[in-house]
Amino acid sequence: MPARQIYISGDMVPESEAKISIFDSAVMLGDTVTESTRTFRHQPFKLEQHIERLYKSLKVTRIDPGHSPEEMLQISRDVLEANLPLLGPENDCWLVHNISRGISVAGADPTKQVSPATIMIFTSFLDLRDWAEFYSTGCHAVTAMSRAVPAQALDPRIKNRSRMAYTLAEAEVKLVDPAAQGILLDIHGNVAENKGANVFLVSEGEIRTPTTANALAGISRATIFELAKTCGIPIREMDLQTYDLYTADEIFFTSTPYCIMPATQFNGLVVGDGAVGPVAQRLLAAWSELVGMDIVGQGRQQLAASRR
Amino acid sequence: MPARQIYISGDMVPESEAKISIFDSAVMLGDTVTESTRTFRHQPFKLEQHIERLYKSLKVTRIDPGHSPEEMLQISRDVLEANLPLLGPENDCWLVHNISRGISVAGADPTKQVSPATIMIFTSFLDLRDWAEFYSTGCHAVTAMSRAVPAQALDPRIKNRSRMAYTLAEAEVKLVDPAAQGILLDIHGNVAENKGANVFLVSEGEIRTPTTANALAGISRATIFELAKTCGIPIREMDLQTYDLYTADEIFFTSTPYCIMPATQFNGLVVGDGAVGPVAQRLLAAWSELVGMDIVGQGRQQLAASRR
Amino acid sequence: MPARQIYISGDMVPESEAKISIFDSAVMLGDTVTESTRTFRHQPFKLEQHIERLYKSLKVTRIDPGHSPEEMLQISRDVLEANLPLLGPENDCWLVHNISRGISVAGADPTKQVSPATIMIFTSFLDLRDWAEFYSTGCHAVTAMSRAVPAQALDPRIKNRSRMAYTLAEAEVKLVDPAAQGILLDIHGNVAENKGANVFLVSEGEIRTPTTANALAGISRATIFELAKTCGIPIREMDLQTYDLYTADEIFFTSTPYCIMPATQFNGLVVGDGAVGPVAQRLLAAWSELVGMDIVGQGRQQLAASRR
Amino acid sequence: MPARQIYISGDMVPESEAKISIFDSAVMLGDTVTESTRTFRHQPFKLEQHIERLYKSLKVTRIDPGHSPEEMLQISRDVLEANLPLLGPENDCWLVHNISRGISVAGADPTKQVSPATIMIFTSFLDLRDWAEFYSTGCHAVTAMSRAVPAQALDPRIKNRSRMAYTLAEAEVKLVDPAAQGILLDIHGNVAENKGANVFLVSEGEIRTPTTANALAGISRATIFELAKTCGIPIREMDLQTYDLYTADEIFFTSTPYCIMPATQFNGLVVGDGAVGPVAQRLLAAWSELVGMDIVGQGRQQLAASRR
Amino acid sequence: MPARQIYISGDMVPESEAKISIFDSAVMLGDTVTESTRTFRHQPFKLEQHIERLYKSLKVTRIDPGHSPEEMLQISRDVLEANLPLLGPENDCWLVHNISRGISVAGADPTKQVSPATIMIFTSFLDLRDWAEFYSTGCHAVTAMSRAVPAQALDPRIKNRSRMAYTLAEAEVKLVDPAAQGILLDIHGNVAENKGANVFLVSEGEIRTPTTANALAGISRATIFELAKTCGIPIREMDLQTYDLYTADEIFFTSTPYCIMPATQFNGLVVGDGAVGPVAQRLLAAWSELVGMDIVGQGRQQLAASRR
Amino acid sequence: MPARQIYISGDMVPESEAKISIFDSAVMLGDTVTESTRTFRHQPFKLEQHIERLYKSLKVTRIDPGHSPEEMLQISRDVLEANLPLLGPENDCWLVHNISRGISVAGADPTKQVSPATIMIFTSFLDLRDWAEFYSTGCHAVTAMSRAVPAQALDPRIKNRSRMAYTLAEAEVKLVDPAAQGILLDIHGNVAENKGANVFLVSEGEIRTPTTANALAGISRATIFELAKTCGIPIREMDLQTYDLYTADEIFFTSTPYCIMPATQFNGLVVGDGAVGPVAQRLLAAWSELVGMDIVGQGRQQLAASRR
Repeated sequence: MPARQIYISGDMVPESEAKISIFDSAVMLGDTVTESTRTFRHQPFKLEQHIERLYKSLKVTRIDPGHSPEEMLQISRDVLEANLPLLGPENDCWLVHNISRGISVAGADPTKQVSPATIMIFTSFLDLRDWAEFYSTGCHAVTAMSRAVPAQALDPRIKNRSRMAYTLAEAEVKLVDPAAQGILLDIHGNVAENKGANVFLVSEGEIRTPTTANALAGISRATIFELAKTCGIPIREMDLQTYDLYTADEIFFTSTPYCIMPATQFNGLVVGDGAVGPVAQRLLAAWSELVGMDIVGQGRQQLAASRR
Repeated sequence: MPARQIYISGDMVPESEAKISIFDSAVMLGDTVTESTRTFRHQPFKLEQHIERLYKSLKVTRIDPGHSPEEMLQISRDVLEANLPLLGPENDCWLVHNISRGISVAGADPTKQVSPATIMIFTSFLDLRDWAEFYSTGCHAVTAMSRAVPAQALDPRIKNRSRMAYTLAEAEVKLVDPAAQGILLDIHGNVAENKGANVFLVSEGEIRTPTTANALAGISRATIFELAKTCGIPIREMDLQTYDLYTADEIFFTSTPYCIMPATQFNGLVVGDGAVGPVAQRLLAAWSELVGMDIVGQGRQQLAASRR
Repeated sequence: MPARQIYISGDMVPESEAKISIFDSAVMLGDTVTESTRTFRHQPFKLEQHIERLYKSLKVTRIDPGHSPEEMLQISRDVLEANLPLLGPENDCWLVHNISRGISVAGADPTKQVSPATIMIFTSFLDLRDWAEFYSTGCHAVTAMSRAVPAQALDPRIKNRSRMAYTLAEAEVKLVDPAAQGILLDIHGNVAENKGANVFLVSEGEIRTPTTANALAGISRATIFELAKTCGIPIREMDLQTYDLYTADEIFFTSTPYCIMPATQFNGLVVGDGAVGPVAQRLLAAWSELVGMDIVGQGRQQLAASRR
Repeated sequence: MPARQIYISGDMVPESEAKISIFDSAVMLGDTVTESTRTFRHQPFKLEQHIERLYKSLKVTRIDPGHSPEEMLQISRDVLEANLPLLGPENDCWLVHNISRGISVAGADPTKQVSPATIMIFTSFLDLRDWAEFYSTGCHAVTAMSRAVPAQALDPRIKNRSRMAYTLAEAEVKLVDPAAQGILLDIHGNVAENKGANVFLVSEGEIRTPTTANALAGISRATIFELAKTCGIPIREMDLQTYDLYTADEIFFTSTPYCIMPATQFNGLVVGDGAVGPVAQRLLAAWSELVGMDIVGQGRQQLAASRR
Repeated sequence: MPARQIYISGDMVPESEAKISIFDSAVMLGDTVTESTRTFRHQPFKLEQHIERLYKSLKVTRIDPGHSPEEMLQISRDVLEANLPLLGPENDCWLVHNISRGISVAGADPTKQVSPATIMIFTSFLDLRDWAEFYSTGCHAVTAMSRAVPAQALDPRIKNRSRMAYTLAEAEVKLVDPAAQGILLDIHGNVAENKGANVFLVSEGEIRTPTTANALAGISRATIFELAKTCGIPIREMDLQTYDLYTADEIFFTSTPYCIMPATQFNGLVVGDGAVGPVAQRLLAAWSELVGMDIVGQGRQQLAASRR
Repeated sequence: MPARQIYISGDMVPESEAKISIFDSAVMLGDTVTESTRTFRHQPFKLEQHIERLYKSLKVTRIDPGHSPEEMLQISRDVLEANLPLLGPENDCWLVHNISRGISVAGADPTKQVSPATIMIFTSFLDLRDWAEFYSTGCHAVTAMSRAVPAQALDPRIKNRSRMAYTLAEAEVKLVDPAAQGILLDIHGNVAENKGANVFLVSEGEIRTPTTANALAGISRATIFELAKTCGIPIREMDLQTYDLYTADEIFFTSTPYCIMPATQFNGLVVGDGAVGPVAQRLLAAWSELVGMDIVGQGRQQLAASRR
């Protein structure tokens, strides 16, 4: 099997050479902004919006990428193009951007960019096996003990790679159930987000989700707003607490790789009647229609293949 | 000039080869704990305590380094030994540990360690030139607009490399003065810490510093407690606000590379009479005595040399 | 040039005699509510609404002004009338109300009104020169380090003269840029207000501004809601953070004297493309139309005159 | 009876002429720092410390008084001297300093001092009649509904005249009892301070009081620390809640005019056994000894005289 | 007069025997969820919705009642049926559910249900006399000094019998006025709720009430939303502060027994013009129409009868 | 086996008759204060202090018990005396006080005591079997997801029976491990308390525990302070976070029944070396000595007996 071609600051290198200096600010300071786009039928989904959000992250973090958004878009497409041949026709991939401030000099002012930014762009096989069963059974959503980093410390809308707080919170929820998917509350006790996903619930016939004041302004999240409109389901941003999750008819996560992941258990109690709910199913169907492929089917196919 | 020898997960490699995969959790998730030790007269200062704290960070982050503290100490000494010949006799170096959870698999559970931890240990020339003048003139301490990450999100005592919040806060203080050194407040408005240093002040004949409830439990900080005792100066942990900094007789930072950095300006106003104060000087002298070399002199010498 | 006629508790006095006792609660306790109205073409703008808000402030602060709102309106008009002759036809003025609880007795219960309230009403030449250039170039908006006084301590909607917190926060932003205009965050990190203005931004084709839960319920602010409706631009109250300001297409302040002041820089970064945006311009034009005069032109004319 | 001589920015004027412009920043912005000293037997008590704290307030508020502390001390003594003849031998007076930033120009940058500071220094007859009975009966301490302004908005240690929050909180406590003395809690529910006094309690044989993180660093408060030491009573700064007040053996306030005011009722319940407690009495006696006069007696005498 | 028949865990017992073990978790831990429904013309109002909310409370508290909602509904109707003969035709009653986790074993895990839940269902004469006059005169609403329990400690939407915080807050407001009705603020100073009622105000022609993020999701509250729609009055959920209450045109409470209780005084100041307002009156009329009886009349009749 | 004799408001009744009305405020409002004392060798431990704290709770909750503390002490001793014959010589018992405000009238002012308080006093066999093994193995301490009720809502030092928040938090920790013992954090993320115990840790040779600002002022807790002094181990009250628990050498809980319960696991990680630590053992030995019996032995004996 041929190796992936990975873009690092101007060069295409094979995967085994995809390395950066341990003195890069990515390593030294977690000083990296990021985007993860996925393909559907080998087409990148809303890549322009991902690039647009990437440039917001770059602006707020004051990292100069050395490229215009248009150039970045072109490079991204080139990276994807170069790697698509590695994918089977029935599979898809991530397209990931990681951009750091470049080399970090010990003890020097970390806000000064002393080298060009380090730009890492790569594809990654979209392995849906861990999530595929959740389309049918739903996952177990669990509240973390820790609280989300507040926006006045670091805004969650800066899609960044300083993720330790999220990783440790996820370790807490795995204490309850090794397959649990975490839900972080903010420091006031409102529902914030999952380590890499947005949280939605359905109650009184309405889809509800926290505002982006304490959650990533997810592109999958935005897609739910569009699809809800298409499907004629009311949708609303509002402050939510765990009571809302406990008493919801449905809960689901949204994220780039799996699009929608239903949760049928919350902190050990069943959600609604314990089955994946009609709203999640309808949105998944609408999403599949939007992208011209069977999202759930793709996951199940991978799972089936891996079990053979 | 020969290259540094850098330790990466079992191997000693020359600096130019000191690279890690862009798929390492250090890059993908800022999932790295760290220590920075310095030498005085080529001897590492309190290395055992740094290793002890490192193992606390590893425990809390649930990273298995694959080595006992004793082994880690030995490896650290070997790295130092291998690189000391590169140092002139009048100079010193950092000894830095970065340990990540290892390879990160896209979309998989980030709390599971699927490969050995990535252990990076390296020395770095201790360049004191940016700080050397501050021993005489004092620096300008400036409050950030953002607030420190609260302990219930990520405890500051976990010495980690998910530093984006700190970097962005430092960018804010540089708006006031490009040479300013930042002071982060916590979300309640109490003085917390600098991006990589602890903050002290002198008032009513007493040294005061925030508790470690919202600041790194610095080893330099602990050294100040020892030296204050030696010098017979009262010292106390307490909640402090900017009022305390504005009205202090002295302010100083403590950190591994420079030990003590006096601040003679705070948010544009002079601290005390505007000169480096007697307590900072006395503590610097005591520290120099403790380590058998002239700390301030070393910095000045570097500066003088670089200006020649 | 004849002196202004100033109203103090029933008397019209020339400016040089416009004094109050240093024992007045205005001086002793900052115990004063206030309004600032401006004229357009010598007509007071929404004076009735200013008087209405003034009486809300009087009620909440439990100050008895000794006059009905109708009487206060009449007095206000009389003061304006008496002073209009001092204004050139091309200029306008402020009409300011300051009402304190009256004489303060040292050590006595400060909530008891032991004398009639002190009513100060005066006009002031509306000097637009400091802001006039900002109509073309935009100003530099900067976040303060301190946080706004929370409503549970003192509600920002009580338009009052206990302004020290605002003045000191403004001193902080002047450290970044002597011409900067401050933006206060609330204690949770949400955008609150400027020391004397409301803050708006434009994003995704929508005008957004904080709710009045932590900002003055400005009459200029209310005018923006009216004008946005007239112009067919969506407008929404919501919690905003600095991320919203960093990534906004436009930012502007609203306040009585200048109506709308665009900001083209925020914390050292350009806002949008760095030029005054179309929404601010359209709203300024609509406001000019509403009041039958060229608001921007008036400012520029003053500036031009002063440079001659 | 001759009029008081009042010092205003260089001039001594009779009381009836002690006026300032309504355009002074004292009136326009509550932009005034202050001190209140009292005399015992016509001698000012700790005047040097009051002046020292005044200069801290001036520094933090960035007001330039135009005088050195030594000059200010001399002027203060002169004002006192000039007015002492007005006092009967058995009475004492306040010596009050109010210093504002000077003239405020409408719409201009309020942090710029465009005129000399306005310095107001005056004496005031120390009328103890409202408090005198409380020495015997104790007062009624009542919690306000509002919360104290947090230090990150405006530090309570800046002794200032932007007091509206305090006045309104006091109005709340007067709803419970027109003679009640308010106790403000901070936004976390800890005991902060009275509008013009510090709060102490006695429990388990120990005197306890909040830290100055959310209370004025009172000079009377400091005197209690000295006297407690003299009397051999343990004393401690700590976070206190209303539970501590409800279950205390004694509660008392300290402030410049009355020194110590016992509270024998708290929120409608008796404190301890309902009588003024032994610690308050002992401290009052020690204070009387310190200043060579009977503090309680002076108050009672005034009361008796006024009832004749 | 015959005794009430009370349902306790399967048995109907006369009132005098309506007792539970002192070892029940209701007594030992306040571990009880509850509902209070009222009748109008002897018909229970929205009983299904009360049962539905009861089952939400049971779910979130993890109490297994041992009955399906349908069974609970039937039992509830039977209890009502059995007790209606005790009521005069002009009167109505409460129908109260209290369900605890059952017997509590000292020292054992309190979350384990070691016995069947204790189910208490009873009717209670709906005595409107204390509120009847308020329909005409309005009540006095007063802010508590304490703050509401935040949702991250115990969500107010769990209708529960661990009410001590509410009782003590109510004791505080009774200090102001023995007939006062309390208003709790949340820990951020926003209006939350009354100990057993929701709070509404009318301002700018709009009905406003806090969200259920910090208030019971009252069924009377929901009825107001329906009636406002019927009456064509705009209604909105939003964060409110005491300023909103001070400056409102109307304030009213809603709760099961009295439906709507106008407040004409708030913290000692009149609300609006001091009379019960038109919106409250219109809503009361609409509610009366909805239930086919004169709600206000019933209260007045009781009062008149009791005064005879 | 004869039945326990239980005291209810003046009467001694057999256990089977120990019931209260379902209309009691204990049931209706969780309006009950409480104490739990234990015996050692049939002698009540610090009963006077428990009674003293009970009267503090009664005062703060404004419940009038109708008895003096001395009378309550005598009744308590009588209840104990009457029930001691039921205990084997090797066993001990709890002595529990529950005092409610008495009958609660639906809809009436809940703060008014309309009947005598309901006084429940009973003994309970001290069953140590669930904890006995923890003396040897240590328990698993786990952080709750919810946060403790803040003191400004309900002070934890009021030992009360409105415990739902604690029960639900404990249900959360049981999700991690059915035998886990919960640790509640306060709303700022500091360690508060267990549902019925205080939390201590040992670090750097020092015993540390949170202040009583957010934890019950436990009598067992106070005993630890005494024993630490006796044993010469430094002990300190301070703010602690989960980092302190993760990195502690020892963790233990203290509560009336088991005195000291070591924790050897915290959130799934071993505490120290995973064994019960020397400080806990030393304190347990000292406590045994203080009370003249082998505390640990008693628990083990019960366990052994039950396994036979």
